[in-house]
Amino acid sequence: MKRLFTSPSARAWLIVAAIVLVAKVFAQTDPLPSWNDGSAKKAIVEFVRVTTTDGSPTFVPAPERIATFDQDGTLWVEHPMYTQVIYCLDRVPAVVKARPELANVEPFKTVLTGDLEAIAKLSMPELEKVLTATLTGMPVDTFSAEVNKWIAQAKNPRWRRPYTELTYQPMQEVLSYLRSNGYRTYIVTGGGQDFVREYSARVYGIAPEQVVGTAGGTQFGYDKHGRPFLTKEPKLLLNDNDAGKAEGIHLMIGRRPYAAFGNSTGDRQMLEYTGAGGGARLMMLVLHDDATREYAYGPATGLPETKVGAFTPALYDEAKAKGWTVVSMKNDWKRIFQFDR
Amino acid sequence: MKRLFTSPSARAWLIVAAIVLVAKVFAQTDPLPSWNDGSAKKAIVEFVRVTTTDGSPTFVPAPERIATFDQDGTLWVEHPMYTQVIYCLDRVPAVVKARPELANVEPFKTVLTGDLEAIAKLSMPELEKVLTATLTGMPVDTFSAEVNKWIAQAKNPRWRRPYTELTYQPMQEVLSYLRSNGYRTYIVTGGGQDFVREYSARVYGIAPEQVVGTAGGTQFGYDKHGRPFLTKEPKLLLNDNDAGKAEGIHLMIGRRPYAAFGNSTGDRQMLEYTGAGGGARLMMLVLHDDATREYAYGPATGLPETKVGAFTPALYDEAKAKGWTVVSMKNDWKRIFQFDR
Repeated sequence: MKRLFTSPSARAWLIVAAIVLVAKVFAQTDPLPSWNDGSAKKAIVEFVRVTTTDGSPTFVPAPERIATFDQDGTLWVEHPMYTQVIYCLDRVPAVVKARPELANVEPFKTVLTGDLEAIAKLSMPELEKVLTATLTGMPVDTFSAEVNKWIAQAKNPRWRRPYTELTYQPMQEVLSYLRSNGYRTYIVTGGGQDFVREYSARVYGIAPEQVVGTAGGTQFGYDKHGRPFLTKEPKLLLNDNDAGKAEGIHLMIGRRPYAAFGNSTGDRQMLEYTGAGGGARLMMLVLHDDATREYAYGPATGLPETKVGAFTPALYDEAKAKGWTVVSMKNDWKRIFQFDR
Repeated sequence: MKRLFTSPSARAWLIVAAIVLVAKVFAQTDPLPSWNDGSAKKAIVEFVRVTTTDGSPTFVPAPERIATFDQDGTLWVEHPMYTQVIYCLDRVPAVVKARPELANVEPFKTVLTGDLEAIAKLSMPELEKVLTATLTGMPVDTFSAEVNKWIAQAKNPRWRRPYTELTYQPMQEVLSYLRSNGYRTYIVTGGGQDFVREYSARVYGIAPEQVVGTAGGTQFGYDKHGRPFLTKEPKLLLNDNDAGKAEGIHLMIGRRPYAAFGNSTGDRQMLEYTGAGGGARLMMLVLHDDATREYAYGPATGLPETKVGAFTPALYDEAKAKGWTVVSMKNDWKRIFQFDR
């Protein structure tokens, strides 16, 4: 035996064999270490196996491997308020400074008081006025700079950490696991497309062009030096919620996903659209039932309804009827955040 | 020397060296064999060199390597009529069969006569009625099936070949060359996004999600079995021409291209937007000046203006002033089509 492995050609083959072996060992380490063993974890691993193993009857060619993820409440914390809404509220003083006539106009007047209880009571149309004033009307590059500045310094008051650290480690593992198996991962969010694109690559490893979100129009124009630039307009092109998520996927990707992940009624149509395709598909809903480590909310938890992330009993019933996987944060996740011990 | 190469470790290194050598030889073969030597070819090769060579002051990190291509007149023949318009005209009999009340209504009445001269005189609003009737109002999957059926059998009358064979071989080489250097290639077309996505992967090696085009809304709904589907609506979301190309790039990609290729005033803002970025950028315009092998048209050629592909003297002047490269089909291209000898 010893002689065999010292012959030149055998040596060369040994090197190849060693490389293959190392690759296999890596492949066999648990790709989802933050998940407890259970039906949810099993469903993910099984989905990857049957869609990526050569010869599987439900094999999916690599170019068609698309997985879509809601962001708020699915990839990171959304409670008690969407991060982007906090950004918009934080921007109000600067907007009022530039446009002083807004100081005594609602809802800006209320926002300026900083009274969180009163702010939480703002109606949807009032909130939309805040979003329009803080997300539109400026050059695309100005908006980009403002978001990046805010994201770098803003902290979540409960965890006293940057919002970008409040992503769910188990979902980060799902993103990596799918990508390492040839899936392209997309964010499909009700949040602003331009907002999420500013940090998606760094935070989730998802390139800006793989972020689909609520999107407004831009207006092409020239500055005084004749240099072209785009201005963010208050014209809604895509409301990427509910049916808008399926429509947005068609518009921005043009392929039906094989896997879709959400956590609320706003993700229902995206999961239905995904599930209506042939072959093996994976539909998952994250249930916020962990009041200790994160939050517990939504009717399906038996806890009081909240403004964000409604996981209704009807959605729960549909998930059960259609074989979608409901992920219990409490039971399925060993840890919630990367910084958890 | 002989002994050296027979020792086991030397053999292993020899294999590695051979692989590197083969890779280098491949890299040194001409990536643009259908281009004549000249300033246009040189500009492309130089752009790739300075943006992809480690240590170059204008090096572009791989994720930012985006190149955008107009389709009609830039990647394939657009004269005397856009291929998609021919598709729409060809669809009219089927539409009228399903909706007989249109038979005596203009512009459908004229289209049904098959009188090409009369059809060519249809006004833009009349043409839009034909586009709306043939491109919207059906499920997305039905549209997809109709386009694929047509594309498989329709032939261009001059070349008697499928339209999908009428792509410019020199531009196909640019697409491949850029991709082999880490660029992601996008089509940014005034044509219908859903239309071009049906064949872009097969014809250009460009995935559907990398096609940006004129796009309408879709409407999510359920069939009688409760299965969700999308219907193409006559609601315009993105007119991907002129300023709309820069706006569409922001909406659909979210990054400024490093290279942009067009052939008409409809591509002007895309090239301006590309050129306004820092570092090395490549802006190219294809000039149709080859009446023998393809067509010669547009004011900059000194030939009569046509309905499609207006390359105006103003655009020519802007290209010269800004250092954009004007590609002469006659002088810069050794051959036009893959099937040319």
